[in-house]
This record gives sequence, structure tokens and C-alpha cells, in this order.
Amino acid sequence: MTAILPFDKVALIGLGLIGSSLAHAIRRGGLSSRIAGHAQSAATRSKAMEIGLVDEVHDTPALAVAGADLVILCIPVGACGPVAAQISASLKPGAILSDVGSVKAAIIRDVAPHVPSAVHFIPGHPIAGTEQSGPESGFAELFDQRWCVLTPPPGAEETAIERLEAFWRGCGSNVERMTAEHHDLVLAITSHVPHLIAYNIVGTAADLETVTQSEVIKFSAGGFRDFTRIAASDPVMWRDVFLNNRDAVLEMLGRFSEDLSALQRAIRWGDGDALFDLFTRTRAIRRGIIDAGQDSATADFGRPHGKQS
Amino acid sequence: MTAILPFDKVALIGLGLIGSSLAHAIRRGGLSSRIAGHAQSAATRSKAMEIGLVDEVHDTPALAVAGADLVILCIPVGACGPVAAQISASLKPGAILSDVGSVKAAIIRDVAPHVPSAVHFIPGHPIAGTEQSGPESGFAELFDQRWCVLTPPPGAEETAIERLEAFWRGCGSNVERMTAEHHDLVLAITSHVPHLIAYNIVGTAADLETVTQSEVIKFSAGGFRDFTRIAASDPVMWRDVFLNNRDAVLEMLGRFSEDLSALQRAIRWGDGDALFDLFTRTRAIRRGIIDAGQDSATADFGRPHGKQS
Repeated sequence: MTAILPFDKVALIGLGLIGSSLAHAIRRGGLSSRIAGHAQSAATRSKAMEIGLVDEVHDTPALAVAGADLVILCIPVGACGPVAAQISASLKPGAILSDVGSVKAAIIRDVAPHVPSAVHFIPGHPIAGTEQSGPESGFAELFDQRWCVLTPPPGAEETAIERLEAFWRGCGSNVERMTAEHHDLVLAITSHVPHLIAYNIVGTAADLETVTQSEVIKFSAGGFRDFTRIAASDPVMWRDVFLNNRDAVLEMLGRFSEDLSALQRAIRWGDGDALFDLFTRTRAIRRGIIDAGQDSATADFGRPHGKQS
Repeated sequence: MTAILPFDKVALIGLGLIGSSLAHAIRRGGLSSRIAGHAQSAATRSKAMEIGLVDEVHDTPALAVAGADLVILCIPVGACGPVAAQISASLKPGAILSDVGSVKAAIIRDVAPHVPSAVHFIPGHPIAGTEQSGPESGFAELFDQRWCVLTPPPGAEETAIERLEAFWRGCGSNVERMTAEHHDLVLAITSHVPHLIAYNIVGTAADLETVTQSEVIKFSAGGFRDFTRIAASDPVMWRDVFLNNRDAVLEMLGRFSEDLSALQRAIRWGDGDALFDLFTRTRAIRRGIIDAGQDSATADFGRPHGKQS
């Protein structure tokens, strides 16, 4: 019988923020004897070699996955199907194939047809990130105390699921299982729509004629700058999220817009009570997030005040 | 001739986040020989005495402003008119009367009629804050490297404006002058609309039937938690902002909604290029804000990862 942990060899396909953070977390946790990696860009592969991010860097995903017991696709959602097709024949029988995509139903739709029957396909999504990208942006603590959602398809082997759960717990995460469809609905409201409206307001501000871009930048400390952090996230990754979680995003966006119209009406008609009621109610959710250990209670997230680096 | 600084006596009407931060900044900078304070709530007045926030705590605003060379209203926008009426007869001839409200045209409309002709009324707005409130939330560094906008009415005395500018620079701020109307337009996009949409999405998330509140809290690290920080700001202050900057907020909100409809359409029709273009363009604004020293360049604002306090 195979030991739960460590794996003999983990292959990370994609060495951006999540892939590189996983490399650090795997080393910190002693979760694999070897780590192989592949990145699409030659510059990223060179950088990964130079900084010793993984034990082996390969020019193709197929070479990287050969002999690996766990393969994790750490690439944009739209790239998962094509890459699955490329690695299909090289996957080791008995291996676990997973991913870290922010969308799950579309990944299953695109990847499952390429998975050999002797391979355990168990999609995953660590709910963690920063606005930075690239092989040097990763750090071992990224997943600590964050949730990782696994969406095993019906009939997935329980032992394989438990091995993957142990792996993510070894990376510092809490683990939860749910269906791909429910995951996509939850993430639409906790992540996808927030990113969309952050991108949107930053775009709106950039296009104004009555307020200059330099004024927007100077006076951003009033609230706007928090949105720009989110709107600085990786464009390819987020394009793929919206194209691949269309229905849930449109559903949540419809509700957001409906609620915003009601607020707009309250402002137009001077209904201070309606505004006050909402503004009071929303404080409770913040308290819940802090109590659950999902954010810092210090003012401004503990962001340094005074001179910024 | 009066020296530019320090003042003999500054009176702070309101001892919340901004009033208490001003008390600390005045002490740090040696900007006044004495600081008098008033707060509406008896509990806040006791707390201010207990922690030695100011030199004198008074039960009424009129008592606090007696003999003060600089009076700053640090109270919600809607309270400024009534308080101005209360203190009018007690203001010292030659004194400067200012405020810190996030809206300027409405403050001038409400306060100016109560200002005696021998008093210099120069509205101001420090663009700085955190999501916390109350007399213990203040700290001296809050205004460091942030902008303070002054909106002197036509005909205001230049010497008085310069004294107030020197005061804010002594608090660590950069100072800029503009008209009240332009201020209200700039802040609508950099602060008011961002707060409104943050409050709105937190409300939308709280009302869903398909996703539980506990799921929203657990999986908030995907982006949502940044919005909850803003949506935990003081409800009375923000109600007053929206009631008193109605036209500029509705104008900016109209543009935001228009742009959001275009994004919604791009998602519905699978227009990845339109999404990618916007998501790339918005990164430049983030870079500008960091270069201008208005935010931290470290990932997640330098928010601690792993276990949160």
C-alpha cells in the first residue's frame, strides 16, 4: 500500500504565483521527494532553474509529468484542456491529476476527456493569491489557513482524494469538498464578481474627462486604491475565469446590479434610512471574516502608514 | 503679525478616527499650545479624558471653541450645519474655522450662513482614513504622505489659507487647493462610488439563498474580503456623504453601470479580447498609485500571511 505522504515525484505544470508558491510549500512540508516543473515561457523556465525553484525543469509538460505521482496544472483555466491532451499519454498509471483553476465545471468539461482510466482526476482550487505573478512571486505561506476546495467527480477513488487532501493540508490549507457546480457559484460571488467590478471601476476612472488620471492617482487613498490592487491581477488568468464561469458570473452580476439600482434610487430620493441600514448590516460580515481567520483585524489590513516602500 | 505656527489653541469638534488622529498629529508636530475637544457622546468624552487625548474636554461645542484660533469640525457631514449654528456666537474674531468632511459644496451651503464675518471659513478634506472609528482608533501617522484638499471660498483671506496649509503640512500631509465642486467630482470616483459598490456587493452576498453566509466568509480570500474592509466603515459618516454629494455620485455611478453593462455583454458573448484589454489597461493605474507613494508595492498591501491576529 502506498503511504499517504510524501509523494515520490510531484510535477507542477505552470510556475507562476500558484505554481511557485506550491514549490515552496512542498519543500517546507517535505511533501515530495522530487519536484519537476514546466513553464510555457523559456524565460520563466530559465528563471526557475536559476533560483532553484524545482528539482527539474522540462521544456514540455509531457516530459515533466513522466513518472510523477501527482501532477498539478497551475495554468490559466483556458489552457488546461490543451495541456491535458499533450500530457495524456505520459501520465503514470495510478497518478493523481489535479489543478488549481478558479473555475471547476469548465475544467472538468475540458480535461476529463483526456484523462486515461488508470489516472485519478481530482480538480482542486486553493482560495489564495496576491496581485503578483511570475516564478519569483511565490512564497510558502500563501496557502496557510486558506481554504482549498476539491471537487472530485462522482466515482473518484476515495484513497486518491484523501491523499490529495493530505497534500493540501501539508501546504497549510484547510480542505473542503463540494460539487464543481456549487464551487462555481460560491466563487462567482466571493471572487469573480469582486474582481470584475474592481477592474470595471478602475477602467471607468481612467476614462473620465472631468477628473484627470493624475487626480485619480493622488487622491486614491479614499478607497479606490484597494480596488486597483485587485485590478492588477493577471489578465490572462482572469479573462479565462470570466469566459469559463459565464452563467454563474452573469447570475451574480445581475443581483449585484439590481441591488445597486436600489441604492442608486435611495441616493436620488434622499432615503438615508435605507443607506444606513445596509451600511450597518455589512459590518457583521467583516467581523465574521476576521473571526474566521481569513483577514487581519488591524486597520487597513496592517498596511504600513506614512512613507510607502 | 501672527506667527504661522503654532496656534495658541486648536479646538477639535468630534473625536472619532479623524479628530483623535489630529490630536496625535498636532502633538507630534507641536502645532498648538493647547488642544480642546468636544464629542457628542458622553462615553467618548470620558474616554478622551481617560486617555489624555486632548488638554480640555468640553460638554458642548460652544465651550470648546471659545478662544480657539483654529476650530476643526471632525463630525459627519450632516452634523456640520447644526454645529456651526451652535458655535457661531462663541467663535473668536480672527479664528479659522475648518472641517474634514468628504463632501465640500454641501458643507459650504450648510456652514457658511452661520460664520461671522470676522472668522475665516476654509473647508478642508484630508484624504486619509481606515475602517475603524472612535477616540482610540486615531494615530499620528494617519495623514503622512496623504493629500489634504482645501476648498477656500472666493475672497477667503490668503494669510488664513496659508496658515491652514502650514498646519496640514505639519500633520504630515501634502496640500492642494481646488474648488468645492471639483473636489466633489474627484472624490465621487476615488472614494464615494468605491465605498458604495463595496457596501453593495457585501449586501448582495449576504442576501443569497444559493450560497450560505458561512461559505461567503470562509472563501472570502478570493477577493471579497478587501471589499468587506471598506464596507466596515462608519455608517453615519457614509450615509451623510451619499445624501450630500448626490449629483456627482449619481453621475459617476451612471458611468460605472454603463461600463459594467459593456463588460457583462463581453462575458455573455465570449469576447475575450475586450476583457483582456481592460484587464491589462488597469495595471497601469496601480503602478501610478504605487509610484506616487499612495500605496504599498508589497503583495496584498503587505498584509500578514498565515495566521492572522
